[in-house]
Amino acid sequence: MKTFNVGLIGMGTVGTGVASILLEKNSPLVEKLNCVPVLKGIADSNPEVRKKLKLPSDVLFVNNAKELIGNPDIHVIVELVGGIHPAKEIIMDALENGKDVVTANKMLLALHGSEIFSKAQKHGKSISFEASVGGGIPIIAAVRDGFIANRIESIFGIVNGTTNYILTKMTRENVKYSDALSEAQKMGYAEKDPTMDVEGIDSSHKLAILARLGFGVDFDYKQIYCEGINNVDLSDIWYAHELGYTLKLLAIAKRTANNNIELRVNPTLLTQEHPLSSVNGVFNAICVNGSAVGETMLYGRGAGQMPTASAVVADLVDVALGRAGITFAAMKTFSRHCERVQIADILQVKTRYYLRFSVVDKPGVLAKISGSLGDNEISIASVIQHKVKGDGNVPLVIMTHVAEEGKLRKALSEITKLDVVKDQTRLLRVEE
Amino acid sequence: MKTFNVGLIGMGTVGTGVASILLEKNSPLVEKLNCVPVLKGIADSNPEVRKKLKLPSDVLFVNNAKELIGNPDIHVIVELVGGIHPAKEIIMDALENGKDVVTANKMLLALHGSEIFSKAQKHGKSISFEASVGGGIPIIAAVRDGFIANRIESIFGIVNGTTNYILTKMTRENVKYSDALSEAQKMGYAEKDPTMDVEGIDSSHKLAILARLGFGVDFDYKQIYCEGINNVDLSDIWYAHELGYTLKLLAIAKRTANNNIELRVNPTLLTQEHPLSSVNGVFNAICVNGSAVGETMLYGRGAGQMPTASAVVADLVDVALGRAGITFAAMKTFSRHCERVQIADILQVKTRYYLRFSVVDKPGVLAKISGSLGDNEISIASVIQHKVKGDGNVPLVIMTHVAEEGKLRKALSEITKLDVVKDQTRLLRVEE
Repeated sequence: MKTFNVGLIGMGTVGTGVASILLEKNSPLVEKLNCVPVLKGIADSNPEVRKKLKLPSDVLFVNNAKELIGNPDIHVIVELVGGIHPAKEIIMDALENGKDVVTANKMLLALHGSEIFSKAQKHGKSISFEASVGGGIPIIAAVRDGFIANRIESIFGIVNGTTNYILTKMTRENVKYSDALSEAQKMGYAEKDPTMDVEGIDSSHKLAILARLGFGVDFDYKQIYCEGINNVDLSDIWYAHELGYTLKLLAIAKRTANNNIELRVNPTLLTQEHPLSSVNGVFNAICVNGSAVGETMLYGRGAGQMPTASAVVADLVDVALGRAGITFAAMKTFSRHCERVQIADILQVKTRYYLRFSVVDKPGVLAKISGSLGDNEISIASVIQHKVKGDGNVPLVIMTHVAEEGKLRKALSEITKLDVVKDQTRLLRVEE
Repeated sequence: MKTFNVGLIGMGTVGTGVASILLEKNSPLVEKLNCVPVLKGIADSNPEVRKKLKLPSDVLFVNNAKELIGNPDIHVIVELVGGIHPAKEIIMDALENGKDVVTANKMLLALHGSEIFSKAQKHGKSISFEASVGGGIPIIAAVRDGFIANRIESIFGIVNGTTNYILTKMTRENVKYSDALSEAQKMGYAEKDPTMDVEGIDSSHKLAILARLGFGVDFDYKQIYCEGINNVDLSDIWYAHELGYTLKLLAIAKRTANNNIELRVNPTLLTQEHPLSSVNGVFNAICVNGSAVGETMLYGRGAGQMPTASAVVADLVDVALGRAGITFAAMKTFSRHCERVQIADILQVKTRYYLRFSVVDKPGVLAKISGSLGDNEISIASVIQHKVKGDGNVPLVIMTHVAEEGKLRKALSEITKLDVVKDQTRLLRVEE
């Protein structure tokens, strides 16, 4: 039986989880498989890490990743350093040294995926990245292998647990954004600097990976439209609920005409019957629509030590058994020759919209606003106007039928100039 | 590039779907892969089938499966005949003739899985069966590969679309079982003889496959406890709703103490927050709980031509690329040497219960019933007793705390003898 040796670089939370599974004497791997990946070496620049780990004597511990990458006994490198540098150099070096690579690094794959895949192909090695999206949810394998007989029409979902925790808390406990964020930080679900999560950047990284894999195309990551939850007002969650919708931060990838694609991250109203609207707390879920399989959804913990380690180890088994190499070589999807397509501009997007205006409380306001919408070919599906005590301005909520965003924005710029309209108008997109 | 030739046996709905994907000129397979499985031959005993298919001249059509099985140009046999005979003989013959096998035959795998797996191992060939459970949902691959780093603690879900359609219709439209069944038959979701679906037998076949794969054990299929939806009364759906629960037909597999397992199919009350309770209509969904990944759920169309064909073709690609053979050889789970375990007797099951008694409308009834429950160590969580116009008998609904079913049944046999209790008492199990 062939032994397959693993070099693990980066011993943060996930790395420690991976090591614990690989080092467990009666692990599920040993129970299930004839051939188990063996942890041969660990690299971490922090010497304190070594003291915390109770490593068996036959596992190397080094401070410099190069010592593992250059080690001929190691067959696969697991990169769990995160970020761009030195993660990219580690992966490139590993491939050049004839190692397969397993990574959870969504940012690196989103920004430099094509370059990394090309390098792997050049050296006849594989990149596995199940842990980069959806934590323990086997979404990469599903899109790549399970749905291989399908033309993927759309992929969309909740791919960031931090923001879903915050939105769930706002919805269930009626607390405002800043309080929900503080609580998420206290619980360890949000970083001290929550920018990457709350501004939707983390979601856009994952979206880029899913879209490249699902649609078999390449594109400029920077063109992805990205809007986070940091401007979500509690009142929008109330009005959405009243209209039969739940507010979620979605990452959305759709095919459009002319082989272009629509890629965007934005807070989205979903009908309460949609399976994504009952995905709460730190859970993630991704819907994939395929030409043969129709609508599917995969649900689970999108982050955390052991769920993410579960995905990394699944990749390691895939590499150890030789399946990852076969897949990587057979799939045109990973090729550097993938067609490079345009991402549709946000102004071209066609969807339904939720609009909340702040207006002065007097007759004729609705007529003015709806007139301007109508002039721009935006038709209205429903209106909510409650009496609100306060400074005299009242919220006016309008749901539109499907409209082109360019036309909607033109209408809004006209409406903003009306003297009856105060403050900024809130716009939220709707998915059916 | 190696060509990989497919022999397709059984051209019913799913077979036709598989052929349509394999024969499509610009299929997603061609778009995504360097190496595509090629449809070489079709066998169907009905000569009419040939006329309906517009087969290219290089695809064989034969009436006898043996002609494909004996053909040295064919590398993999797809068995879509269904049932036990002659499907079993076809698969055994194919393995003996050195062919890999892909099948959607849940009944055959449930009843004779161990024998078929042993035969495949003996001949160094693989059996792939993604389409046997959950239609297009990649649940087999997820349990086998995606969650390989996990000790699977439980697998449970909605694995029969017909019964889920009927229960959804009863719940949403307030129609009784027989009317919902008629509608399902009219829509083509239920067979003329709906026994296999409504009595839970189809679900129990799928449960057997998931449990063998997930727990890596063997057991006697006939020991699975199986209760269908044919006795579900509309009023139970109402009372369940009032208590915050939704009624679903679940297939449930859990590990219990002493490496035994609990396997049962029964109508189940689920809290309305549980992700399975919003799975409606013909959709299926399966929850898998793993030691590392925690709670997950996979959702999609569990039947139908193209979703099932999607899974069959995914298996064909797996075989064609050589991954299926690697997996089958490496996994101890498929081995004939799997430990044979006992399925826990239903009387040993511990869960919460919903009980609906039909009682005479007079004071003191609740005291008598709760007394008898208490004597048998069953404690009560909640009670509903509505005034109902009619023959004088009224429903009394009791939710218990966790209790052992043996003790509960003892209490019920005592309660049935009380002169205040009329008709049969309805018992439903609850999952949290």
